[in-house]
Amino acid sequence: MSGTLIQEILQPLEQLRLIDPHSHINPHAAASKTLADILGYHYYTELAHSAGLSRQKIEEPGIEPKEKVARLVPWLATIENTAQYSWLLEMCQVFFGFCDDRITTANWEKLYDAAQAKMQQPNWEQFVLERSGLDQVYLTNDFDDPLQGFDTQLYVPCLRTDDLVFHLVKPEVRARLAKASSADVHDAASLKSALSHLFSHFVTNGARACAISLPPDFSPEPISVTTVNPLIARIFAGQEMSADESRTVSNFVFWSLAEFCEQFKLPFDLMIGVNRRVYESGVFQGQDLYDKRTSLIQYKKLFNAFPGVTFPVSVLSETSNQELVSYSWIFPNVVTSGHWWYSNIPVFIERDTRGRLQAVPMTKQIGYYSDMYKLEFALPKFAMYRRILAKVLAEDFVMGRGWKPERAVELGVRILRGNVEVIFGGRAE
Amino acid sequence: MSGTLIQEILQPLEQLRLIDPHSHINPHAAASKTLADILGYHYYTELAHSAGLSRQKIEEPGIEPKEKVARLVPWLATIENTAQYSWLLEMCQVFFGFCDDRITTANWEKLYDAAQAKMQQPNWEQFVLERSGLDQVYLTNDFDDPLQGFDTQLYVPCLRTDDLVFHLVKPEVRARLAKASSADVHDAASLKSALSHLFSHFVTNGARACAISLPPDFSPEPISVTTVNPLIARIFAGQEMSADESRTVSNFVFWSLAEFCEQFKLPFDLMIGVNRRVYESGVFQGQDLYDKRTSLIQYKKLFNAFPGVTFPVSVLSETSNQELVSYSWIFPNVVTSGHWWYSNIPVFIERDTRGRLQAVPMTKQIGYYSDMYKLEFALPKFAMYRRILAKVLAEDFVMGRGWKPERAVELGVRILRGNVEVIFGGRAE
Amino acid sequence: MSGTLIQEILQPLEQLRLIDPHSHINPHAAASKTLADILGYHYYTELAHSAGLSRQKIEEPGIEPKEKVARLVPWLATIENTAQYSWLLEMCQVFFGFCDDRITTANWEKLYDAAQAKMQQPNWEQFVLERSGLDQVYLTNDFDDPLQGFDTQLYVPCLRTDDLVFHLVKPEVRARLAKASSADVHDAASLKSALSHLFSHFVTNGARACAISLPPDFSPEPISVTTVNPLIARIFAGQEMSADESRTVSNFVFWSLAEFCEQFKLPFDLMIGVNRRVYESGVFQGQDLYDKRTSLIQYKKLFNAFPGVTFPVSVLSETSNQELVSYSWIFPNVVTSGHWWYSNIPVFIERDTRGRLQAVPMTKQIGYYSDMYKLEFALPKFAMYRRILAKVLAEDFVMGRGWKPERAVELGVRILRGNVEVIFGGRAE
Repeated sequence: MSGTLIQEILQPLEQLRLIDPHSHINPHAAASKTLADILGYHYYTELAHSAGLSRQKIEEPGIEPKEKVARLVPWLATIENTAQYSWLLEMCQVFFGFCDDRITTANWEKLYDAAQAKMQQPNWEQFVLERSGLDQVYLTNDFDDPLQGFDTQLYVPCLRTDDLVFHLVKPEVRARLAKASSADVHDAASLKSALSHLFSHFVTNGARACAISLPPDFSPEPISVTTVNPLIARIFAGQEMSADESRTVSNFVFWSLAEFCEQFKLPFDLMIGVNRRVYESGVFQGQDLYDKRTSLIQYKKLFNAFPGVTFPVSVLSETSNQELVSYSWIFPNVVTSGHWWYSNIPVFIERDTRGRLQAVPMTKQIGYYSDMYKLEFALPKFAMYRRILAKVLAEDFVMGRGWKPERAVELGVRILRGNVEVIFGGRAE
Repeated sequence: MSGTLIQEILQPLEQLRLIDPHSHINPHAAASKTLADILGYHYYTELAHSAGLSRQKIEEPGIEPKEKVARLVPWLATIENTAQYSWLLEMCQVFFGFCDDRITTANWEKLYDAAQAKMQQPNWEQFVLERSGLDQVYLTNDFDDPLQGFDTQLYVPCLRTDDLVFHLVKPEVRARLAKASSADVHDAASLKSALSHLFSHFVTNGARACAISLPPDFSPEPISVTTVNPLIARIFAGQEMSADESRTVSNFVFWSLAEFCEQFKLPFDLMIGVNRRVYESGVFQGQDLYDKRTSLIQYKKLFNAFPGVTFPVSVLSETSNQELVSYSWIFPNVVTSGHWWYSNIPVFIERDTRGRLQAVPMTKQIGYYSDMYKLEFALPKFAMYRRILAKVLAEDFVMGRGWKPERAVELGVRILRGNVEVIFGGRAE
Repeated sequence: MSGTLIQEILQPLEQLRLIDPHSHINPHAAASKTLADILGYHYYTELAHSAGLSRQKIEEPGIEPKEKVARLVPWLATIENTAQYSWLLEMCQVFFGFCDDRITTANWEKLYDAAQAKMQQPNWEQFVLERSGLDQVYLTNDFDDPLQGFDTQLYVPCLRTDDLVFHLVKPEVRARLAKASSADVHDAASLKSALSHLFSHFVTNGARACAISLPPDFSPEPISVTTVNPLIARIFAGQEMSADESRTVSNFVFWSLAEFCEQFKLPFDLMIGVNRRVYESGVFQGQDLYDKRTSLIQYKKLFNAFPGVTFPVSVLSETSNQELVSYSWIFPNVVTSGHWWYSNIPVFIERDTRGRLQAVPMTKQIGYYSDMYKLEFALPKFAMYRRILAKVLAEDFVMGRGWKPERAVELGVRILRGNVEVIFGGRAE
């Protein structure tokens, strides 16, 4: 009975076309070219490495794609239980006609070749978009991305600002900023002018959000121009910074970004809680972890200072979800956003979804984003989320509160798609 | 099958008459006078504000009740998903004969008028008490409340002490203390004498508990008279305090309250974890949030120092529930108490209930309190809790451990009502 | 339907013979002699004390076993709801033919006598091992345990190191170390030589792990010989240490243990998060609690420094489970281990199990250990875990992901037993 009901709600949600409001897609190479692009996703390399495969084998320079897959496949046996593996299987079944229920040393090569044949078809990218029901995919662009040579109505630019906030001390970042903004930065005013230039460039090219990932101990606060001026001068003169000084500069840049978000009417995606390079010998993109001792109280000043900026907030630790629910319940400018990274597995998604649906205005919830690097991942990731969403809608709203199934579907549609359109102000044409 | 079983357990729990061990009821105006008293509850104003309604519209001075409701109603469409909305609907259906499943701009006026007609009936308060099955409602009285003019057997006084612990620096608080205690406070001894006077007054008038809400970073410890004497002298001379000095005084007062709880044999309700005025532009009572980085280890000294005082503990963050379970499992004087505020939604109540029932002696659990400001809220809030309790009893005890349903009901009765009688020592006559 | 499926998966898991990878069994008196050995387990004494029985009654010197049980039994009525009570009932039913569903003042004496009759049979220990399906039970031995007089193939030694890391300042610990290692410790080199001697002794006697429990604020880091030499000299000269100095020595010893684990190829069991003696008036072993504000980020240096050491990690707070999942997903040398103490109740076990099975390689999960002091406890504790594991396998893998039940059973077998064999390198002969 509950199973039938879930299906009844799931079916229209599965029909729904999507806007994916956060990904790492390269719009010039959105789809995979071989199975290595899929298995090379850090979720698989890091799990295989965790299970025992050496980084050297995975990241050997010059290794052929097929050889890379051949090295990873034997380790898949150790991660068949994971949600990540279930995405892989679903991609292979839906996209490449794979019929087995395991990818093994015996069957992988046939799968590899079948996948390659599909991927070499000229319309592969369009096929994946269509089959996945994707109307738009939001990107996460470097601040100096020219944003040229792709359809920004389909692949929507978003300004990623990690480098600006945390890595100005690196010469290459400053060089990229100089080039992108044509500015000679030497103090707060010239830095803000450079930032303004970046925002203009992005907004002109259809950007829909500014985005950043933040460490668990970050606590934004305004910094006076007088305080930051000498530090900026020193940084841009290539001098060293103490940890405290770096933090002051980070705070200044971050606060300025929020000001520009207000001015340029961009939502500011905050992805809160990641510590970078915790496991330094890990595979590419498989080195980051976190410290759950973080709180949204650290963002009190920010949320109060910018009532005109919408902050879609993602939290890395599931222990932060209730805070996210409560802060979105109280602050008009705080919005719940997706299920990020280490929290993107069913056990946490289900509970987070319940909490949000029970206590946050329905207009303030962005249900899901893929966070994908290659286009094929949207399908299984959104499929996982839709199944969980249908279950929660069936159990908590239809069975628990006596709603008609159509009304539950309506709520689901809003969470999955409607709110993305309203909050980011975009609509596919 | 499980549904039938839950109903079998739920039914007797729904018959059970209640003592509500924590509310903010004004005994001189316990019931609502118009729908504005209900929709004016901060849960609705803050959610409507969070969804987009300005504070100025909600809190316009001199606004008529009906106009206030008219302004709030359009925003209800954005919060129909919330548990808080389901309480509203249940109140309207049970008390005012509302038959629709949504309150809209089209039907609210009829509802408003129907509600007003009911509320104007002379026995409305009695009707609500009766229909809700309430035998007693515990209050949260200001320390200078005369406690006169109401039936303290029905509306049971409790001494709220936030002002004494955290706001002695405010002249009006000191003035109220001077008036209520007839004491000239200038040092530790005279302050304790004033506090003692308050306790006498409350206990004489049937008080059953002392209560306080505490910020997440509070960590009680004893303060010597020598240390605190000059600070008290300065405070009562109207001088400023540093943050450290304020904290010292807070600690002294708090510790003294625990001593008086011991002396006067009152349980000391600790409501742990709220940060006040986090969102300063929020609506009335819709400004407080929290920092989940708090631990009951901060209460180690207190729990050890007062084995004779019962501490019913409420925690604001659901991440604190396991600590509450563990501390209640170990400390004889720590008791679990209700599901507070941001944790008072089904997803957290269910899990918290499971943990407590699985590991805390059944005699040490106060299942629920309403925390209400108006009498009508007890019904839907307790109804929500009873449904969850019945579900947990059915699944974990009858299905999971083979208990007979009657035995599960017996446990539920104790959690819902029996323990309240035993722990607070009161019994309706 | 789901019930039938769970049974189908549970049955083979119940047939499976076990290796219990962590217990506190005394191999010279593994089984209980009277019911007092069972009811004397701190889970019962502390719960009875928490419910109201005085420590003096429980711990009266020279009290007879039967009298001790007589004093505890009346309080069992207050903890019938707890998971711990359900273990007690299951032990009594399975081992002593108890047929009632409650242990009361009316029936306990008959139960006591029946239990004693069973326990006095000469083969009682063997019977319990057999009935519980135990092939091996890992111990937690004091560092100076001679490891003589018992079958180390059955009762597998593990080197417990709490005293070495945290209590060298106690004269009796230093005396025990001197005796066990025949070393004259006065500096880092001689201390490491003594530790090396202990490792040799343990490994020679079949030890399979080094183990330690750690407070929530511990954060291991390497200490230079130069820094620690004068401190060791002072400790072993019987001088006092400041808190900072003690911590430095603790860090040095802990880091040295990790080095020896690498050298001697022993997994290093980390049991993270306990504060000792929080409730100092509590019953024996019923005084410890915790502070949930702890993070695995504190172990960043350790996990990076010892890629060759396997760290089976147990966390005390359920709020740490997601971190454990994430760190095991990323670090090859971090492995999830069991459900410890305050997290060893169904509500937490189920959720922790879900998270681990969804995101950690299946080869890196040690499902469960008993943590028991007396042999009879393995049966109900593992039974509880097996039921939960079967439920999660049925719901998440068979129903959720379409696995065949046999495949889910295979996964369960690995989690319950296979991984224990591989990770600790032992196999019963």
